[in-house]
Amino acid sequence: MCGIIGIENNENAAVLASAGLLTLQHRGEESAGITISGREKMRTFKAMGLVSRIFNEEILLNKLPGTVAIGHVRYTTSSKSSLINAQPFQINCIHGNISVAHNGNITNFSKIKELLLKKGAIFNHTSDTEILLHLIAMSKGSLTDIIANSLRKLEGAFSLVILKDRTLIGARDSNGFRPLVLGKIDNSYIISSESAAVEVIGGKYIRDVKPGEIIVIEDGQIKKSLIYKKTKRQTSCIFEQVYFSRPDSIMFEQTVKEARVKMGEYLAQQMKNIKADIVMPVPDTGYFAALGFSRTSGILFENGFVRNHYVGRSFIKPSQNLRNLTATLKLRPIGEVVSGKEIILIDDSIVRGTTSKRLINVLKEAGAKKIHFALSCPTIIGPCYYGIDTPSKEHLIAANNSVEKIIKYLNVDSLNFLSLDNLVKACSSDNKKSDVFCVACFTGKYPTKISKSA
Amino acid sequence: MCGIIGIENNENAAVLASAGLLTLQHRGEESAGITISGREKMRTFKAMGLVSRIFNEEILLNKLPGTVAIGHVRYTTSSKSSLINAQPFQINCIHGNISVAHNGNITNFSKIKELLLKKGAIFNHTSDTEILLHLIAMSKGSLTDIIANSLRKLEGAFSLVILKDRTLIGARDSNGFRPLVLGKIDNSYIISSESAAVEVIGGKYIRDVKPGEIIVIEDGQIKKSLIYKKTKRQTSCIFEQVYFSRPDSIMFEQTVKEARVKMGEYLAQQMKNIKADIVMPVPDTGYFAALGFSRTSGILFENGFVRNHYVGRSFIKPSQNLRNLTATLKLRPIGEVVSGKEIILIDDSIVRGTTSKRLINVLKEAGAKKIHFALSCPTIIGPCYYGIDTPSKEHLIAANNSVEKIIKYLNVDSLNFLSLDNLVKACSSDNKKSDVFCVACFTGKYPTKISKSA
Amino acid sequence: MCGIIGIENNENAAVLASAGLLTLQHRGEESAGITISGREKMRTFKAMGLVSRIFNEEILLNKLPGTVAIGHVRYTTSSKSSLINAQPFQINCIHGNISVAHNGNITNFSKIKELLLKKGAIFNHTSDTEILLHLIAMSKGSLTDIIANSLRKLEGAFSLVILKDRTLIGARDSNGFRPLVLGKIDNSYIISSESAAVEVIGGKYIRDVKPGEIIVIEDGQIKKSLIYKKTKRQTSCIFEQVYFSRPDSIMFEQTVKEARVKMGEYLAQQMKNIKADIVMPVPDTGYFAALGFSRTSGILFENGFVRNHYVGRSFIKPSQNLRNLTATLKLRPIGEVVSGKEIILIDDSIVRGTTSKRLINVLKEAGAKKIHFALSCPTIIGPCYYGIDTPSKEHLIAANNSVEKIIKYLNVDSLNFLSLDNLVKACSSDNKKSDVFCVACFTGKYPTKISKSA
Amino acid sequence: MCGIIGIENNENAAVLASAGLLTLQHRGEESAGITISGREKMRTFKAMGLVSRIFNEEILLNKLPGTVAIGHVRYTTSSKSSLINAQPFQINCIHGNISVAHNGNITNFSKIKELLLKKGAIFNHTSDTEILLHLIAMSKGSLTDIIANSLRKLEGAFSLVILKDRTLIGARDSNGFRPLVLGKIDNSYIISSESAAVEVIGGKYIRDVKPGEIIVIEDGQIKKSLIYKKTKRQTSCIFEQVYFSRPDSIMFEQTVKEARVKMGEYLAQQMKNIKADIVMPVPDTGYFAALGFSRTSGILFENGFVRNHYVGRSFIKPSQNLRNLTATLKLRPIGEVVSGKEIILIDDSIVRGTTSKRLINVLKEAGAKKIHFALSCPTIIGPCYYGIDTPSKEHLIAANNSVEKIIKYLNVDSLNFLSLDNLVKACSSDNKKSDVFCVACFTGKYPTKISKSA
Repeated sequence: MCGIIGIENNENAAVLASAGLLTLQHRGEESAGITISGREKMRTFKAMGLVSRIFNEEILLNKLPGTVAIGHVRYTTSSKSSLINAQPFQINCIHGNISVAHNGNITNFSKIKELLLKKGAIFNHTSDTEILLHLIAMSKGSLTDIIANSLRKLEGAFSLVILKDRTLIGARDSNGFRPLVLGKIDNSYIISSESAAVEVIGGKYIRDVKPGEIIVIEDGQIKKSLIYKKTKRQTSCIFEQVYFSRPDSIMFEQTVKEARVKMGEYLAQQMKNIKADIVMPVPDTGYFAALGFSRTSGILFENGFVRNHYVGRSFIKPSQNLRNLTATLKLRPIGEVVSGKEIILIDDSIVRGTTSKRLINVLKEAGAKKIHFALSCPTIIGPCYYGIDTPSKEHLIAANNSVEKIIKYLNVDSLNFLSLDNLVKACSSDNKKSDVFCVACFTGKYPTKISKSA
Repeated sequence: MCGIIGIENNENAAVLASAGLLTLQHRGEESAGITISGREKMRTFKAMGLVSRIFNEEILLNKLPGTVAIGHVRYTTSSKSSLINAQPFQINCIHGNISVAHNGNITNFSKIKELLLKKGAIFNHTSDTEILLHLIAMSKGSLTDIIANSLRKLEGAFSLVILKDRTLIGARDSNGFRPLVLGKIDNSYIISSESAAVEVIGGKYIRDVKPGEIIVIEDGQIKKSLIYKKTKRQTSCIFEQVYFSRPDSIMFEQTVKEARVKMGEYLAQQMKNIKADIVMPVPDTGYFAALGFSRTSGILFENGFVRNHYVGRSFIKPSQNLRNLTATLKLRPIGEVVSGKEIILIDDSIVRGTTSKRLINVLKEAGAKKIHFALSCPTIIGPCYYGIDTPSKEHLIAANNSVEKIIKYLNVDSLNFLSLDNLVKACSSDNKKSDVFCVACFTGKYPTKISKSA
Repeated sequence: MCGIIGIENNENAAVLASAGLLTLQHRGEESAGITISGREKMRTFKAMGLVSRIFNEEILLNKLPGTVAIGHVRYTTSSKSSLINAQPFQINCIHGNISVAHNGNITNFSKIKELLLKKGAIFNHTSDTEILLHLIAMSKGSLTDIIANSLRKLEGAFSLVILKDRTLIGARDSNGFRPLVLGKIDNSYIISSESAAVEVIGGKYIRDVKPGEIIVIEDGQIKKSLIYKKTKRQTSCIFEQVYFSRPDSIMFEQTVKEARVKMGEYLAQQMKNIKADIVMPVPDTGYFAALGFSRTSGILFENGFVRNHYVGRSFIKPSQNLRNLTATLKLRPIGEVVSGKEIILIDDSIVRGTTSKRLINVLKEAGAKKIHFALSCPTIIGPCYYGIDTPSKEHLIAANNSVEKIIKYLNVDSLNFLSLDNLVKACSSDNKKSDVFCVACFTGKYPTKISKSA
Repeated sequence: MCGIIGIENNENAAVLASAGLLTLQHRGEESAGITISGREKMRTFKAMGLVSRIFNEEILLNKLPGTVAIGHVRYTTSSKSSLINAQPFQINCIHGNISVAHNGNITNFSKIKELLLKKGAIFNHTSDTEILLHLIAMSKGSLTDIIANSLRKLEGAFSLVILKDRTLIGARDSNGFRPLVLGKIDNSYIISSESAAVEVIGGKYIRDVKPGEIIVIEDGQIKKSLIYKKTKRQTSCIFEQVYFSRPDSIMFEQTVKEARVKMGEYLAQQMKNIKADIVMPVPDTGYFAALGFSRTSGILFENGFVRNHYVGRSFIKPSQNLRNLTATLKLRPIGEVVSGKEIILIDDSIVRGTTSKRLINVLKEAGAKKIHFALSCPTIIGPCYYGIDTPSKEHLIAANNSVEKIIKYLNVDSLNFLSLDNLVKACSSDNKKSDVFCVACFTGKYPTKISKSA
């Protein structure tokens, strides 16, 4: 997963882009970069690590002069973590200098790469985004045509911001897998992965970029907006609302927070037979669902974990005699809250099951009497080919085990999953929109053809 | 403010000390250090910055061999931020190698320093802790006598861990201003600023170190425990429960979380005439009080802010045209939650008032109809001389303005402070204990003499 | 200017390549990199800065596994100093993974780039080397054919090492502008810019790679060696011997040291009418010529400067009142040696004249009575288009001023340049070879066509 | 060994001190620091590493404001390499803020430390310099008296610069073991370990600080100069001239370069029976002696090694199959020069013998026919207690082996040491001064009492 942002016609383009990236940082912590243009020669500054470490006043104000900027934060799924794949990718081609930032996963990457190799293309990165650059470089016509023709050849998930001179382009695949929104601040348009980034930097959310749409913006004007490709129906990733997006981002006419509260309310309806002393979330993603659960069920909401934001990833490898140390350092139950209690514990999802097992063990050691584990989405039985970093099928606990077996493995007293119907209802502000989601990870039915090597 | 920890008789002394420091990191982010002893020569490793950046597996396992360790995280109030003041302070004196880590503020520092200078002492740091080292070096007798005699000369607030060979010593001033607890893991005793640090690393909280107590520990045994100095009554800093401590730490026989929930409950009782649509906390410190408020008042609890933990301190200086950017980057209201609502907003305290003003402004811009601002402690009218970083009197908004004026300044619809009586009740698990707190910042009556220059 | 090295069929490929780069570091201090192959997937590690800072045991042994390696050190002439141009360039193309390291300057770069852009090529770097990668990717046939066909299209100066799987390829332009040698260690072949790098790592120098030659090596065998292009005559850069190369490298059947000694001897013959007390070099490049001068003239050789190797480039900007500080920090005359003396001062060349002027001023201030300045090459009147970083014509002092004017400007008592004939004689171990040098910077007559934009 | 510098009454105090430290960097590469005073509060900036990496324009101009500065570069002999021992040491005591930088070794350190510990002193460092700070803090009277009284208690070797407010003090032990000179630039006095540092920064060398002298300087005036202690005779370290000092520094009325040339001349007289083709130095310290040898003997001077200044200390640990790599990377013989030759090889001294053995082996492998090894000092048979980092007696090859055995070990054809008489003559510009040197390392007779633990 990644986060992207673009802003044009703005004297503070680099500063606002970096503020937007800070707001999108939850979408990727591995690398961050900004390309700037519009005044001097196009230039890109990118590095491994967090936005706040990479960009400071000196770099933003002195090294990135210009009025149009695109930015990218990257999350890596594989071990190919290296600066060479950090985006945006800035290139020089027959059309001049162009820079691209991409969120998603191109599923026919291998096939197109093969064709491009035969034409003599050279690849500098291991990222799938690079084929788009080649397609653009090999296309002819107006800038819009070039982009549209190139994108038409791609399959899979992609939300894009593209920069050329003073022109900012936003584009989204025809399924609308990954989110992309249009916003405005003063006389500047903004394109961003999430509406929260638009609003945090002081802008107004206008609308979503439509599936299959290209928007071409210059000098504070939308020069062109067209649907370059149509697909039978929109299939937007529902996991954005379950887990990935910021709670204050708007998706399908409601905030993600509201969707999550509803997930908890529906879950409470599903579980009305279960009695408990308290309902508590796994911080932070189970938070709003637990709040919704408490409101519907009337069971007392408690925040029974203390989360330590200072703990980094790589503190120390857990050895036998320091077993639970790493777990409790990050997330520790408050004994007083959980001891002797029957608890409904709310999390967003189970993937491998290992983290959940550790947490539940810690809760039991802190004296929890009973644990009813509830998830705000159905069982995940298939990997994602559209950009979410789920592991392959053999590592998905629910793809390989019955609910009974998972109950045993986790050592919980009950285990409940939000039904797919309820999830879809929670995510749609309006029931007519219920048919717009990709739920392939829950059903195994993918909305596009998936090639073997993808 | 600072955090301290000591652990003895443990093969993982350095690892556990660093894990303890991670748990105490909220008490100070400026510098961190560990002294180790018990196997090879005593050595200290310290640096500026966060624990997770300073200590890694390589340093903990290879550079810090030993079985007894003390650690320190430092918060700086003044501009004298520099490695030279990072603790622990390890010295060599007539008694051998000794290391000390200190939390608090010695109020007769200047007077003692003057005496020591006349005796020919040299000072390497600008910290008040250094006088203790000199007093120890100039004392005679058993180790316990040396420490006791030295501490008897000090006035003010100090919780200490001291390391010598395989001996770990914990000590607390006779007023008991700053917290200090005794814990145990397997055959190792632990001394720590907060019980949470004891428990996160797998230990059990035993009891508080008593005001005026010295505890001398060696080889898993408490060798000695004595009261070196008595004061009329204990005056423990009540602000630890209001704001400073971790919610899962135990203070006066209840968790800090429980005290905060009660603060909210009492506040709800005080404000029962005020009607509102929702009650919401300023994250994160207003959280439990808001929960308590909601339970007592029946008003809907909502979490209306999204907090961004990725935003560092020094992103960019706010200029005129980026006014609210820094504020909203860190803490942004969810429009849907607050728009059109009458809100009871709960925070822990008002000091200068500037941050509150900015937050309230942001809430109003997001559409809040009415804001009733409520604080889980009384008005702060005096600076702290015992270690809390409150500014001098002229910067304390409530020391210089009537409540009416503050209401106008903040632009709120009402402003309520928890009464001192209710605060004391919330912080005492048992009413008999109500006379054990320092509440000088609310009353201006200090439990010790304060010299001018302190 | 740059330095390149390749080694194949060797378990210590990365370590030996890095040792070779250390030996070639004088050819470029800006960036360094190594590509490794032959065991796992091809990978490249490169960074800005000196070899000794970039490569350590951890990186060489753990991050660069393989048996075939190429390496590069880079010198930047322009402001385009950035990691993006650091070599080797590793790409993926129809022929698989290929990596290239280049020393020289391709003079028809712009023309070829234009053609490639029209074919849809994308450029990631600003370096001229990238066009070779495109030509390779667009060529067909055997590996040797691909390389040969691509190189045939290039004009200008290039010595190359190319890596693919277990194959190491060395190639040199048909003029033989830049040096390139073949060496061997045990069962491994080495290709390097200079023989010194071959020998320092324990290998034996075999022969020069011939102008227009491609050598294809695999598994310790020379698989193929062919002349892909012929030019009327070899025109190897004579400045390599005057200044650029290490004294222990072999060029035209003698060491560079020997050539420099001879330059001094011929210079002494030219200046036999000039009497002086001592002859002394400008460290370090005038050293051997001064030794030769002393031997022939009988004038006492003295080393009158102390050179400080600790002084970096960017210590402090010289202000008016610290005028000579930066100069004397680096190179200070020993007063006792120079005071009251008539000195013959030997340097390799005058380019802009500013450094010489400063040095001579410092010598005069130290008491030198007379200074006869002598250079071991003729006047430089034309810029280099083949890889040496000489400035454009308007900055070349000898291109714009008579010798009389330069004498006045430098404030010396006489000024002598080695004649072109003598320089050529000094650089040829064998008179038959005298027609093999590029001396364009002394004559303004370039051995290839130079396009305007080159 | 260390280097020290002080400068007063100068607007560029910090810049000139850092330039002086750069010039003294050969005396210690481990840490560097500067204390500044005279305008704002005294402050010290120090760090591990080279001067050029620690001090830049930003730090010198903005972080070190003031008009009086002292500086220090440190060389560590033991493993106690850590920032805590980096100098200058700045303290606060009854006399105010004082900072000290020290070159040498106090031989009665342990005895004084014991006394100080009994008085209650605390030690923060492991350096012997700290006792001086305590003695100063415990003394009374005028500043001069305080320093004089404190220094009178010390035995051993010490050259010092001391800073207090606008006063700069230079002092030297009564034996004059370590060098210390007085210089002047405009209206500012300079105190420095070597005259070269005075002259590089634009000053004039005035005279040596006398053995047992204290010089007190303020506002461009020498306020006081007195001999605080007399010793029978001066015993200045002769090894400064053999090896340690810069060639352009003045010692005993001649440059070190001149002394070294003479050492070579006397050596040539001692060895007139030995015939050879060339005489060549081990770079860089054998250089001037080899030049002197050539002049007296008439044997051709050749520089047969190429030294690579880019090679750092910690490139890679030599393994069996990369045996000679580290050696030849640093210092490689030019085959052409040495092959088939009878060589007189000149170095400054033999300590352990291991480096010499490796060099000679490399020369033989390069084809040297015969090697006559000659040293510009006598056999070293005793360790130094006065600041030079010679190892203990059991590691000194000449303390434990006959010359015959060393010849065998080194595999040379002859081995010659400059006689003590000749060394003393070479180092004295005037024969009357021949009785002023410490030659204890050659004779084992120490000019002061050496306590066991020293």
